[in-house]
Amino acid sequence: MSRSTRYTVTVQFGDCDPAGIVFFPNFLRWMDASSLHFFRTCGLPPWRELERTRGIVGTPVLEIQTRFSSPATYGDTIDVHTRIESWRNKVFVHSHRVMLGERLLCEGTETRAFVERGTDGRIHAIPVPEDIRALCS
Amino acid sequence: MSRSTRYTVTVQFGDCDPAGIVFFPNFLRWMDASSLHFFRTCGLPPWRELERTRGIVGTPVLEIQTRFSSPATYGDTIDVHTRIESWRNKVFVHSHRVMLGERLLCEGTETRAFVERGTDGRIHAIPVPEDIRALCS
Amino acid sequence: MSRSTRYTVTVQFGDCDPAGIVFFPNFLRWMDASSLHFFRTCGLPPWRELERTRGIVGTPVLEIQTRFSSPATYGDTIDVHTRIESWRNKVFVHSHRVMLGERLLCEGTETRAFVERGTDGRIHAIPVPEDIRALCS
Amino acid sequence: MSRSTRYTVTVQFGDCDPAGIVFFPNFLRWMDASSLHFFRTCGLPPWRELERTRGIVGTPVLEIQTRFSSPATYGDTIDVHTRIESWRNKVFVHSHRVMLGERLLCEGTETRAFVERGTDGRIHAIPVPEDIRALCS
Repeated sequence: MSRSTRYTVTVQFGDCDPAGIVFFPNFLRWMDASSLHFFRTCGLPPWRELERTRGIVGTPVLEIQTRFSSPATYGDTIDVHTRIESWRNKVFVHSHRVMLGERLLCEGTETRAFVERGTDGRIHAIPVPEDIRALCS
Repeated sequence: MSRSTRYTVTVQFGDCDPAGIVFFPNFLRWMDASSLHFFRTCGLPPWRELERTRGIVGTPVLEIQTRFSSPATYGDTIDVHTRIESWRNKVFVHSHRVMLGERLLCEGTETRAFVERGTDGRIHAIPVPEDIRALCS
Repeated sequence: MSRSTRYTVTVQFGDCDPAGIVFFPNFLRWMDASSLHFFRTCGLPPWRELERTRGIVGTPVLEIQTRFSSPATYGDTIDVHTRIESWRNKVFVHSHRVMLGERLLCEGTETRAFVERGTDGRIHAIPVPEDIRALCS
Repeated sequence: MSRSTRYTVTVQFGDCDPAGIVFFPNFLRWMDASSLHFFRTCGLPPWRELERTRGIVGTPVLEIQTRFSSPATYGDTIDVHTRIESWRNKVFVHSHRVMLGERLLCEGTETRAFVERGTDGRIHAIPVPEDIRALCS
């Protein structure tokens, strides 16, 4: 079984749209925050430090997939449960389940890659660093 | 061939993250804006008017899927090309392609449903209204 | 001395701009969240409930003023300290101090009014309700 | 008379809150975008280029002040009229007026400084560069 983390957020008034429910891109914001929280919990330093020491800028998303089951509104406290679903050569897949208590709000996957910034200033994917993979397993 | 619309956005400094590129949930914001723009272009009134006249609150997303191919940064002017990929009984699928000139930034689908607000204040999906489907085809 | 509340937020990667620091409008988002948190802590129900029972939609801002002293970045945990600086007839003034530990990040005021939605659908300010003022003092 | 620019934005559904009106921190986002648009219109390159060539990271805000007069909602097209109200030694003051046609939505000032990133990675204010001031007058 892989390691799983929980990231807790309280929904703000400004996170909700005129229908009174969370504007859905905010769920993606929270999944992104939970992804970074996962790596910090596993012992990785902030990206800005990894960039300085190893040239790793972060883990941009390559693909996402999300199913929304139930809405949330401001004042709700929600939990994002995050784990690594699979490690491949150059990418890995995060799985996120967003819960309001026992109720599933949405769940989805993010495919991400570790990237470096080249000498031309552009970013490109690198193979998943072995030590980082070991830390997170 | 189905109708297609184009929604243009200029990327702002605040849309970008510490890596200097668009923070990906913003692409979802723009797809959402392009979805509403699609319906307005087809002749639908704003949701607040449809709610008053017909009880239709909007078209929340049930599922999304997006592949990110290339980053964008502030100052870039991007186009979201939107069409309806399929109509089903209770849902429809939007297809969005986000372009920076000739370069594809990301593309994805959104599955959405038209919803009404019940007397208990909660929203629920309704079959796609025939007249709206006709307007948008 | 008036009542003071503390609202805690962890800065997310996506809250930061290409300079690597919090994009300043987010501080205003957090002050707004802290304002609502203040009222909830004082015993007020969510706005959606106050709208149903008393027609009060919320407390939109009429004026803001903020000084920024020091930046924050993702991973920082910050506290918004909020109180009512003054009550007037139709408005009240919130004071917010945003701290990172002992370091002041920014501080400011918001002038707000309680509003109702009229029969024409538009919102308008009402005198500060006496019972709410009593609850919050 | 100083130079004035106009930045146009169409309000999106997701920019609005449960009261159906623009969530106010978005007005600050648009003023920020209009500030950068002002400098680009005056002939300045993007910040990322100025950072590479001259070490100038941008113009963070030191202080803001805004009065909100009238709400806006999704579908509205609004204009941010921006100019420099005053230049001082280390700071300058932007003035923004946000209009919906002839109707004033909000107006405010931003006090900003040009900043460089020091060798310790932290940013600090520098005197307003004379050539930039000349470009913008």
